[in-house]
Amino acid sequence: MSSIPVLEIFGPTIQGEGMVVGRKTMFVRTAGCDYRCSWCDSAFTWDGSAKDDIRKLSAEDIYEELYTIGGDKFDHVTVSGGNPALLKDMGILVDLLHDKGCEVALETQGSRYQEWFTKIDDLTLSPKPPSSGMETNWVKLDGILHELEQAGRVDKASLKVVVFDEADLEYAKDVHARYPHVDFFLQVGNDDTEEQNDEVLMYKLLKKYEWLIERTMESDALNRVRVLPQVHALLWGNRRGV
Amino acid sequence: MSSIPVLEIFGPTIQGEGMVVGRKTMFVRTAGCDYRCSWCDSAFTWDGSAKDDIRKLSAEDIYEELYTIGGDKFDHVTVSGGNPALLKDMGILVDLLHDKGCEVALETQGSRYQEWFTKIDDLTLSPKPPSSGMETNWVKLDGILHELEQAGRVDKASLKVVVFDEADLEYAKDVHARYPHVDFFLQVGNDDTEEQNDEVLMYKLLKKYEWLIERTMESDALNRVRVLPQVHALLWGNRRGV
Ligand code: SF4
Ligand code: SF4
Repeated sequence: MSSIPVLEIFGPTIQGEGMVVGRKTMFVRTAGCDYRCSWCDSAFTWDGSAKDDIRKLSAEDIYEELYTIGGDKFDHVTVSGGNPALLKDMGILVDLLHDKGCEVALETQGSRYQEWFTKIDDLTLSPKPPSSGMETNWVKLDGILHELEQAGRVDKASLKVVVFDEADLEYAKDVHARYPHVDFFLQVGNDDTEEQNDEVLMYKLLKKYEWLIERTMESDALNRVRVLPQVHALLWGNRRGV
Repeated sequence: MSSIPVLEIFGPTIQGEGMVVGRKTMFVRTAGCDYRCSWCDSAFTWDGSAKDDIRKLSAEDIYEELYTIGGDKFDHVTVSGGNPALLKDMGILVDLLHDKGCEVALETQGSRYQEWFTKIDDLTLSPKPPSSGMETNWVKLDGILHELEQAGRVDKASLKVVVFDEADLEYAKDVHARYPHVDFFLQVGNDDTEEQNDEVLMYKLLKKYEWLIERTMESDALNRVRVLPQVHALLWGNRRGV
């Protein structure tokens, strides 16, 4: 029986980021990450602070809970983490959701490949820029994109780089140059995960978004690119579970 | 020789709406519309107020101007209006842009079909809800979607409904139910095109966006749906040409 460490199940809400931004979706957040990004906005998935909330659930349990909460008001589920790519059994959940008529989106930093990647309807690979303090394993990332290519699934995937500063922007250019044919998203980083005043945060985020747009517009290395804000943070500040 | 009535050429900037929201793009705004939406935010394209700014340009002229402004910093052009679907010669511009390695997005309300629709890379059909004061010609809209289907281009198109109130939301549900397999976007209407204080506008727009999300989330008739803000208005208020 499959067993997936789950921290949160909630929705329906909108997807606030990336290739299907705005999509009505349910969220399943898994526990555990092989990274330790300096600005991680879901550190509770790996830093032990929420370890008593982790539940080991089967795919059936997860679907049941999704249905209890979401009823007939969803046909799309987003799996996020942590790094859900650590979980071999995720494929069982993906199959079950497909059987139930749901599309599945999933985000991972691209440090690990799983065979079920080729089943994901909206797969976001978000390698982490220098400001995270992490090192990208390019061999792994090349490998993932190679597998997706072989399976004819590149059009179901995208790359997303979160940008906090100029060094991150340079990194983003490298990623885009390395995989020019993969849909590419730039996103403003929220480096203010403690800010409790939503209006202050909203204003700061829009200013940073404007900066990122400006820098992207003036670069001829960033053309086939989409620049997005973090819609969730704009709307709901730093609250969890919305 | 083709002749296209042009009001504005600008960019690169981001696409602020719809299926390729965030995409780096150049804009070409054409003059003339067969509609008179009550809340039209580009009434200057048809109300005579900018008639001295209209230039009749050939496709080559337009590309030359795009290149003069945008240089090597774009590979995507968005044609908006007014209603660019009034212009038979648009196909010549689309072909030329493709030759130059550009993708082409275009938005129209869906009141008129043109053969070149099947060449557009990101075609947004945005039928107008009751608050506009306009009547949708469903036979025309059915016809357009039929043509796209025949040409295997439905995946290059999307429907977008701008929502100002509850009646608009009901209209949106009808549109989605009529074309369930077409990618469907809901967008908050900006009914405050006179507001000059950007922060006030930004705050109002986010509140309305939150309302639209809430109403969408609680409806089982709106599942395969994406809800988006008007990113341009959030960032730049009611200014033109950004
Ligand atoms: S990869 Fe994601 S979940 Fe893991 S530490 Fe980095 S930001 Fe946090
Ligand atoms: S269809 Fe568009 S351009 Fe024409 S009046 Fe309506 S909003 Fe304005």
